[in-house]
Amino acid sequence: MTKISARFPVVDAQVSPTGRMEVLSRTEAARLSSQGHGGLRELFRNCALAVLNCGNPLDDGKELLARYPDFEIHIIQRSRGIKLDIRNAPASAFVDGTMIRGIQEHLFAVLRDVLYVSREAEGTAGAVPARFDFGTSEGITDAVFQILRNAGIMQPVIQPSVVVCWGGHSISGAEYDYTKRVGYELGLRGLDICTGCGPGAMKGPMKGAAIGHAKQRIGKARYLGFTEPGIIAAESPNPIVNDLVVFPDVEKRLEAFVRTGHGFVVFPGGVGTAEEILYVLGILLHPANVDHPLPLVFTGPKSAEEYFRRIDGFIAETLGDEARSRYRIIIDDPAAVAREMQGGVAKVRSFRKEYRDAYYFNWLLRIEHEFQQPFRPTHANMRRLRLSHNQPRHLLAADLRRAFSGVVAGNVKNDGIREIEQHGPFEIHGDAGIMGPMDALLSSFVAQGRMKLPGTAYNPCYTVVSGKPEVTRS
Amino acid sequence: MTKISARFPVVDAQVSPTGRMEVLSRTEAARLSSQGHGGLRELFRNCALAVLNCGNPLDDGKELLARYPDFEIHIIQRSRGIKLDIRNAPASAFVDGTMIRGIQEHLFAVLRDVLYVSREAEGTAGAVPARFDFGTSEGITDAVFQILRNAGIMQPVIQPSVVVCWGGHSISGAEYDYTKRVGYELGLRGLDICTGCGPGAMKGPMKGAAIGHAKQRIGKARYLGFTEPGIIAAESPNPIVNDLVVFPDVEKRLEAFVRTGHGFVVFPGGVGTAEEILYVLGILLHPANVDHPLPLVFTGPKSAEEYFRRIDGFIAETLGDEARSRYRIIIDDPAAVAREMQGGVAKVRSFRKEYRDAYYFNWLLRIEHEFQQPFRPTHANMRRLRLSHNQPRHLLAADLRRAFSGVVAGNVKNDGIREIEQHGPFEIHGDAGIMGPMDALLSSFVAQGRMKLPGTAYNPCYTVVSGKPEVTRS
Amino acid sequence: MTKISARFPVVDAQVSPTGRMEVLSRTEAARLSSQGHGGLRELFRNCALAVLNCGNPLDDGKELLARYPDFEIHIIQRSRGIKLDIRNAPASAFVDGTMIRGIQEHLFAVLRDVLYVSREAEGTAGAVPARFDFGTSEGITDAVFQILRNAGIMQPVIQPSVVVCWGGHSISGAEYDYTKRVGYELGLRGLDICTGCGPGAMKGPMKGAAIGHAKQRIGKARYLGFTEPGIIAAESPNPIVNDLVVFPDVEKRLEAFVRTGHGFVVFPGGVGTAEEILYVLGILLHPANVDHPLPLVFTGPKSAEEYFRRIDGFIAETLGDEARSRYRIIIDDPAAVAREMQGGVAKVRSFRKEYRDAYYFNWLLRIEHEFQQPFRPTHANMRRLRLSHNQPRHLLAADLRRAFSGVVAGNVKNDGIREIEQHGPFEIHGDAGIMGPMDALLSSFVAQGRMKLPGTAYNPCYTVVSGKPEVTRS
Amino acid sequence: MTKISARFPVVDAQVSPTGRMEVLSRTEAARLSSQGHGGLRELFRNCALAVLNCGNPLDDGKELLARYPDFEIHIIQRSRGIKLDIRNAPASAFVDGTMIRGIQEHLFAVLRDVLYVSREAEGTAGAVPARFDFGTSEGITDAVFQILRNAGIMQPVIQPSVVVCWGGHSISGAEYDYTKRVGYELGLRGLDICTGCGPGAMKGPMKGAAIGHAKQRIGKARYLGFTEPGIIAAESPNPIVNDLVVFPDVEKRLEAFVRTGHGFVVFPGGVGTAEEILYVLGILLHPANVDHPLPLVFTGPKSAEEYFRRIDGFIAETLGDEARSRYRIIIDDPAAVAREMQGGVAKVRSFRKEYRDAYYFNWLLRIEHEFQQPFRPTHANMRRLRLSHNQPRHLLAADLRRAFSGVVAGNVKNDGIREIEQHGPFEIHGDAGIMGPMDALLSSFVAQGRMKLPGTAYNPCYTVVSGKPEVTRS
Repeated sequence: MTKISARFPVVDAQVSPTGRMEVLSRTEAARLSSQGHGGLRELFRNCALAVLNCGNPLDDGKELLARYPDFEIHIIQRSRGIKLDIRNAPASAFVDGTMIRGIQEHLFAVLRDVLYVSREAEGTAGAVPARFDFGTSEGITDAVFQILRNAGIMQPVIQPSVVVCWGGHSISGAEYDYTKRVGYELGLRGLDICTGCGPGAMKGPMKGAAIGHAKQRIGKARYLGFTEPGIIAAESPNPIVNDLVVFPDVEKRLEAFVRTGHGFVVFPGGVGTAEEILYVLGILLHPANVDHPLPLVFTGPKSAEEYFRRIDGFIAETLGDEARSRYRIIIDDPAAVAREMQGGVAKVRSFRKEYRDAYYFNWLLRIEHEFQQPFRPTHANMRRLRLSHNQPRHLLAADLRRAFSGVVAGNVKNDGIREIEQHGPFEIHGDAGIMGPMDALLSSFVAQGRMKLPGTAYNPCYTVVSGKPEVTRS
Repeated sequence: MTKISARFPVVDAQVSPTGRMEVLSRTEAARLSSQGHGGLRELFRNCALAVLNCGNPLDDGKELLARYPDFEIHIIQRSRGIKLDIRNAPASAFVDGTMIRGIQEHLFAVLRDVLYVSREAEGTAGAVPARFDFGTSEGITDAVFQILRNAGIMQPVIQPSVVVCWGGHSISGAEYDYTKRVGYELGLRGLDICTGCGPGAMKGPMKGAAIGHAKQRIGKARYLGFTEPGIIAAESPNPIVNDLVVFPDVEKRLEAFVRTGHGFVVFPGGVGTAEEILYVLGILLHPANVDHPLPLVFTGPKSAEEYFRRIDGFIAETLGDEARSRYRIIIDDPAAVAREMQGGVAKVRSFRKEYRDAYYFNWLLRIEHEFQQPFRPTHANMRRLRLSHNQPRHLLAADLRRAFSGVVAGNVKNDGIREIEQHGPFEIHGDAGIMGPMDALLSSFVAQGRMKLPGTAYNPCYTVVSGKPEVTRS
Repeated sequence: MTKISARFPVVDAQVSPTGRMEVLSRTEAARLSSQGHGGLRELFRNCALAVLNCGNPLDDGKELLARYPDFEIHIIQRSRGIKLDIRNAPASAFVDGTMIRGIQEHLFAVLRDVLYVSREAEGTAGAVPARFDFGTSEGITDAVFQILRNAGIMQPVIQPSVVVCWGGHSISGAEYDYTKRVGYELGLRGLDICTGCGPGAMKGPMKGAAIGHAKQRIGKARYLGFTEPGIIAAESPNPIVNDLVVFPDVEKRLEAFVRTGHGFVVFPGGVGTAEEILYVLGILLHPANVDHPLPLVFTGPKSAEEYFRRIDGFIAETLGDEARSRYRIIIDDPAAVAREMQGGVAKVRSFRKEYRDAYYFNWLLRIEHEFQQPFRPTHANMRRLRLSHNQPRHLLAADLRRAFSGVVAGNVKNDGIREIEQHGPFEIHGDAGIMGPMDALLSSFVAQGRMKLPGTAYNPCYTVVSGKPEVTRS
Repeated sequence: MTKISARFPVVDAQVSPTGRMEVLSRTEAARLSSQGHGGLRELFRNCALAVLNCGNPLDDGKELLARYPDFEIHIIQRSRGIKLDIRNAPASAFVDGTMIRGIQEHLFAVLRDVLYVSREAEGTAGAVPARFDFGTSEGITDAVFQILRNAGIMQPVIQPSVVVCWGGHSISGAEYDYTKRVGYELGLRGLDICTGCGPGAMKGPMKGAAIGHAKQRIGKARYLGFTEPGIIAAESPNPIVNDLVVFPDVEKRLEAFVRTGHGFVVFPGGVGTAEEILYVLGILLHPANVDHPLPLVFTGPKSAEEYFRRIDGFIAETLGDEARSRYRIIIDDPAAVAREMQGGVAKVRSFRKEYRDAYYFNWLLRIEHEFQQPFRPTHANMRRLRLSHNQPRHLLAADLRRAFSGVVAGNVKNDGIREIEQHGPFEIHGDAGIMGPMDALLSSFVAQGRMKLPGTAYNPCYTVVSGKPEVTRS
């Protein structure tokens, strides 16, 4: 039943699981109903609200909670399984009072992952001990694996087909249309799409692929969406996503992309996209991964050529030609992108076959603990970065990623913005041969209007300082 | 294998049936290989070429044949069934050398219908007699039924859900986007789409519905495409269409729409769309159909408001308020259109249930022989039309439809254009109270640029003459 | 609702189509409701009753009609399709008032075939002409093909797998168990079963195969049942049959077996089984079929060894070693039978592939008109048989089949029994080298108790006369 | 490849998972390959061998290991998932060198359960702690739930339909046929079967139901098999079982039956069957379960009437009329048994709906810790039983069950037989009013030949002593 409301209409409903069902034990269901468990109830409520708010772009999660202060969600035990009792949910999740089925599935995916991660990471007070070990590299990789397996994502008999699409969630209409065309060509070739769930470059490829798959009569296409509680409100999953997974944080989610994807397409974005590029290049530059095939294409329409040219130049000057050999830039040619992916995925297949690695999880790729640990962008941490050529390339890449991560935080994340307000811009220190290109790259982003939401003037949150930083990393 | 070509790249291939298979007897297969049978081989070849040319809009079929003079298609008998051997087919039907599966299905749908209609309408020389009786109203309706049944379109257990979408194949970008939004809202409500197969208002609703169905996890959505040999080259079926039927001519196809659809949405178009509107109104105005529910909505974005306002005015002045009570005009509100259809379809369901009519075929609707017979737009036939209030409304509607049909022919069809070139514009006679509004309507189409393809000046192919025509209809 | 009844409880019910649905046009439905059409209504009623009586073995159809004099069946048109309204049906077709679903499917299969054959063989008075041409060999083969295709039996992509099982419907418990064991081994090897629908050797293989298929998780196994109106009452289809086809007469049904089956297993039976053996041997002995592979195994438990030894001896003496080379006798080894079929079916596959013949219909096999025409066992026709070595082997086989056919009729069929009662035993004339073995074979059947139902003394319906018959065949 | 062998032919093979796949993490796969983990490798090997030996009835597991001393099974990691490498496996698991698919599924079910139970019950040395808590009643119930859930047995949307069939694995041919007929009637009514996996009364109902389901076109019927390592060698799972679960011990398995089943049918057996009857009656007699519906039928052909009459008499004298009101005895009427189950299951459905208990797991039924703990049949434990009326009925039932359990052990289990050999027969003490009937019942079993395998004379392993036992239970 839809309730009339001044600004944000809401609906009450009871929904049952669909598709892959979740059978909860009584203890598990109780866990969500009770207080405690590190704010599990609130976590579930907020993620559920984000899923229900799909289709209404927002800048941050706070606004969402403010819009729907009376939103409630509870588990009801029924003889045929559980139900969710929902009050004051965003009306946009419903069609004439009935919840859109894709959103309904997402709700239960959130329930599944939030419960699972909480149980495995924390255990049950007294009775059941924790299972995940986030203290070691192996422990983190195993947790990523277990979360994916528990979500039913892994399907042993399926051939490699997952193309991860990265890029900005706030891009121009022309660039958005281009992501659809690339998705369409990928879909025509039977490739599946995996993204971070939000609008823009995360939604376009899926919509395009849906049409490509329909034309090829591919009934079981996969649209994987990987998200995490910190981003889900701003990048609410599109209901086309038919396999949603909620990871506990950014780093687990990034690792999930890299271990699940068989190919990577990067569309234009801003600093965040640059950060993702440095993340994957940092991994690929590790000596252990040097022969590891992983197709990586940067692509966009004509309007994005400058963006990628700049990034390419920056990589050339900082990480060198080895790094450049790991990707291809393709401008305005969706079919060529799709063919490149198809060829690359075939090589991934041969490689995994030869080394007996699973198709559904890239066990062999070495991901250093460096890349698995969260980076907190404080002034101290930013100053501590080692942006020097005097170290292995993959470590430089790791610190470059952290630098960009700090800029993203200073631009758009709550904590980062507050830091900047209190202590002024971050100082980023480094070799002149690195800091020069970095400053140029960031300035080009500003010039291209890719630094912040359109219509606002950009006030930099950082100062680039050439030369050694005072404090060395411990 | 793709062959390099100066302008129109071509591909050779052998394809097998997919989805619903066709098992051919030896005699049937032979039929297509031999000469004779009223040009069956050429008919099949031309329709097949049109299907393969999908995605390359063309004004007429002649250009298509000129582009691919070496195109050939032959049936091969194989132990597991038949194959089609194809030479010099448009490369756009293939992805990296493999035919798009939707197009492959369409090829076999064309084969199925062309063979079936030929056999049933003509029989086999000597051995097997003809079956269809196009001489009577019942015979035509039965043929439409048999063709649909043979195509596997009818599914007894399915609830009414088919929304027929009509409108121009050459519309503005804004109007095209609007058709997608309407399709999306229909898809969200679990409704299926049936169109005439081409671009524009025929393609938009299907693309929109595909996304709506994906979000609702409706795996078995239906995208019906009804075409006929005279139009297929210009309105090549979109591969999303998953049930293609090729009818023998325009009138059978129109009847198929009306007997299959449970609701009708008309998007803006030109004279052709006006003709379709008069066709369905003419049927609904028949006294026998007066209580027959059939939801009918005219809709478009703001830019289309004028178009429908004009049509509505014309109907008011010629057919009166009873006619106007059979449709609703909804401007710029896709969700309202979808809700109107959903409600209307529910009424259709109740009605059929009450009168024990089939859901999959509207037997009860009376369609007069008038509406089933082809209209040849010659000067004599045009002059002979009775555009007078002095007759039942549904007969006036029938002759109004013929008048518009003549204008369409004089504008864009080969035969019509030649007639005009030789004998000057058609004279359309009638009561002043009808001819005035008609002239005004046609002039408004010209003013709105809906009379011909954009960028060309319109030179009217008709003269409106008030007063009695000299020759009365026999 | 079950009605109490002294001896044969009956039930009223309304049933809808399930599985492959039948969409009827109004004319077709009317056909069944009206009188006329060569007793179509009665034919449908009787076949429907036979299907409903499944599980209650009967000697003949007359008894069935006598048991259920008030049985009625009518078609009702409903908005979602048709329904069957059934009165006073045998209660055994129902479980607690609900019709067994397999039987429900059979009812609609009967409806489908009875309507189709009537329409195609007779046409519609005035309007639609007949289609089948039973006057020529090609016409009969085409009709068999069309009936099978209309029943949806042909599936182009499926590999050869159909093993036809023949044998008596009244066999010993040990022999019945043996047919189950053979069916089980066939099912374990993924082979499908096709039989004549009744009890005994027709039911055992299906039950065994069902268990084999279950163990192999073969969900789409096929259990084909081919019947005809003259036999359906006595050999009511087992509900395991999931593809039932009703042919118009014995000869069409026999041809359907031979053109559909990829391998043949013959279990012990009586004269009828000998007749089937002579039918298939007669076809295989035709010079045109000499290289045509068709695995043929006679098999049974120890108790059946004598039966097959006798038949083998008879074939040796009459048709010679070429005929004997076309089959293998395997005693008491179900796995060997299944392996023989599996190997033979593989050869059939290669052969069809090489000669581009369909897997689903054996077009290449030559079946002479001789074998397609019904044989009426009158005294004149029996006397006219040419049982002489002085002719091609396959023609001798044809007349031997007719001789056995006459004996079957004289033993158990109404017409035959009456003939014998009126005119005394049939005289079968022929060369001494043929008549001697024939007499010996028939006597051995009597000795083995295979000549008639157990518990009755056998009184021969024939006299074997060596020497030329007086009348030669025209 | 089959190897020739003097007595027990063996085959080598590599098999992949089918159906519900198992994705193993590297750590999990390593677990099975290494030594340690409480003999996990050997446990898996023995259970796997038992599954592969299906169809070759054996008295005990030792003989099995002796027959196949060279049997080996190893996990191989492959890019598309895991494989099992098998050496010297019983040839009967294969058809012409290919493993029967049902057996293949069972192998992976064994792998799944053995790994899961080991991990959850023991944890991983150092890294991952144990999860199951077998020390409390709730802990045991939760473990049973988790094992079932992990096996994918629970399906929330499914209606109650599981009929548990108990009874002897060594019964007469007539009794075996009767279990098939009951299974057939259950299958016709859409009910699913759950048994203990072995031959006799565990196999018959599944075979019958398979035919019933086939006739009703029920494609997704469930054949649940619950086993445990101690019994699997003697009661190897029939490949019809399509959901096999291996529980850690007898008591978990019994609890799984009671919490999963919606109805219970008990066929004749011996002392073991009597033990199962007392188990379920003991639970139902608990005051907390007094209103809990659970249909329970004892049934068999005429030959079994005496068996159940005796048991009924014994229950009347020991547990009284309340206990007798919880079951019905139906002799020689399979349809009545099925109707009773259908009605009873409907009541279970209403009850669960009313009390919001899950359909797939009977949470509400109280099972005392008494019934969940293993009983070790030593002379001391047997003497300590309290077989007195001077206590609540359900506790008396618990001790009666233990008494019968001891007799079963003394008759056929290794440990029990050795105890008897060393210390002479068990002494069972108790009130005269209980010991008398017990002695009579056991004697009747001997008289009916139900005490041991046919053909062997029975030498009692117990002495019944009326009066108080010397030692009281702590």
